[in-house]
Amino acid sequence: MTTPAFLALDWGTTNLRAWVVNADGSIGANQDFALGVSKLAPGEPERRFREEVRPALGAEHLPAVLCGMIGSTLGWVEVPYLDCPVGLPELAGALHRVEGATPPAAIVPGLRAQRPHGAGPDVMRGEETQVLGWAASDPEGARGPRLVCHPGTHAKWVLVRDGLIERFVTAMTGELFDVLSKHSVLKSTPGAEDWGAFDEGLEAAGDGGALAARLFTVRSKVVGGAMPAEAARSYLSGLLVGAEVASVPALLDAKAEGPVVLIGDPVLTGLYARALDRLGTAVEVHDGEAAGLAGLKALFGQGGVA
Amino acid sequence: MTTPAFLALDWGTTNLRAWVVNADGSIGANQDFALGVSKLAPGEPERRFREEVRPALGAEHLPAVLCGMIGSTLGWVEVPYLDCPVGLPELAGALHRVEGATPPAAIVPGLRAQRPHGAGPDVMRGEETQVLGWAASDPEGARGPRLVCHPGTHAKWVLVRDGLIERFVTAMTGELFDVLSKHSVLKSTPGAEDWGAFDEGLEAAGDGGALAARLFTVRSKVVGGAMPAEAARSYLSGLLVGAEVASVPALLDAKAEGPVVLIGDPVLTGLYARALDRLGTAVEVHDGEAAGLAGLKALFGQGGVA
Repeated sequence: MTTPAFLALDWGTTNLRAWVVNADGSIGANQDFALGVSKLAPGEPERRFREEVRPALGAEHLPAVLCGMIGSTLGWVEVPYLDCPVGLPELAGALHRVEGATPPAAIVPGLRAQRPHGAGPDVMRGEETQVLGWAASDPEGARGPRLVCHPGTHAKWVLVRDGLIERFVTAMTGELFDVLSKHSVLKSTPGAEDWGAFDEGLEAAGDGGALAARLFTVRSKVVGGAMPAEAARSYLSGLLVGAEVASVPALLDAKAEGPVVLIGDPVLTGLYARALDRLGTAVEVHDGEAAGLAGLKALFGQGGVA
Repeated sequence: MTTPAFLALDWGTTNLRAWVVNADGSIGANQDFALGVSKLAPGEPERRFREEVRPALGAEHLPAVLCGMIGSTLGWVEVPYLDCPVGLPELAGALHRVEGATPPAAIVPGLRAQRPHGAGPDVMRGEETQVLGWAASDPEGARGPRLVCHPGTHAKWVLVRDGLIERFVTAMTGELFDVLSKHSVLKSTPGAEDWGAFDEGLEAAGDGGALAARLFTVRSKVVGGAMPAEAARSYLSGLLVGAEVASVPALLDAKAEGPVVLIGDPVLTGLYARALDRLGTAVEVHDGEAAGLAGLKALFGQGGVA
């Protein structure tokens, strides 16, 4: 018999994903909600969680573990960043119990790490749960030093060593693609991926330097008669991903071993795998949702939330 | 006595600037119009020029020379690009007489050049007139090889040799600043320049590589507690300009001599001068409007427009 044990939530900027996790580790009811914190007013997350999310999953009486931007200033309560290096035990020990929440709700803190060479702090909220969820599922691989990449609006390149997130660097590649495609002279409308154009973009990315100049080729190749306008969107995608994989890992200033671990949305990890493969870099790909769920389970187990 | 000789126009994407030029080279009536081609419907430029611009300047009977985006698909008539290398004589010889325009109107063609290393075509419309206007005013300096930079929405880095524009590379730094400041997680509102923050951005630009990752520090330094939110806008500006000056000139693949020639809006050339100075690069600064007017005068004189 499966007994519901807790409610796991990955509550991000644009979306909320929730799962009922049973005592035997299996998954019960689960659902996506268009309740990203960027769409909610102050005070709204708590109410929507109580009035909509819990009832929809029949989870009114379960303790909950929540990760992601729900712990930011935009979320339910602001949970201070935890400074790296951080592993699952440290993360579980720092779970933030929301005051007055019944049944109990615990929010996973985001992480802060200093970039090398005095380049200042970097931050994440949500990806730590996926990365450490992967680490829990592959302790040998997470001994490292290992390079983990989580593509997305704000892509993370993470150095994992001895099962700990040691440091990381964020590249806002996804957001650049989004704002340039919507609001700039490079604007375009979504369509089927043109893999030839994507690869041409990877090629045009070169060593990843001079990005502002390479970006203009999306336009100048079209108006200069060297590329059809329909190819511009995939070319831009290839250019941005190519520039990231060629130049961002070096900012971590670390010698990693083994394949790059790609964790995230399968469409995005597919683009990054293609870009890394072109550089001769081996990868292994993991589904971000499964990794996140593994992380939330481990945190519930270690965090004593019930 | 000053006799009006022709009407000079720099007609760009967002603005139109027009001058009555007298036979002795002095300037008569002149005015800015909020008639950038991006705001006009097809067919509108000709009508607004005839009905508004000419009468406002008392220039109904003068021949006109027009440079800028007015020669693009958004403009009056599309004028094909002229392929580099191009000097003033070639540009004057390729002026496009608008069919049926009375009095005569001649549009300066934009330029196209191939980037080195097979990186495809690059294009400009308008900056060629300013760069060659400067070259006409300083033939010795324009013998080169000389690096000329024209900052703006789409900044141009131009290699000038023997008075010719040999090739160039565009960096969309200004547009990146604009779309990121308006539409991204880095958004901010205009205010007084914070020079300390601008310089910190220059420093953070490093060698100009990994831009998508360096850009995120605008956000992570604020939420990570290392920079006040009010400093983010100037820091972003310094970061983008710093990355451009550190990395884009190399794409020209040329050994230039003498100070970098900065031509353009004085506020922008001031930012670039500061960034280049920090790299130990000497500059000389020229006003873009004056250079453009010098170019239009030379084109009128050599182009036989009257």
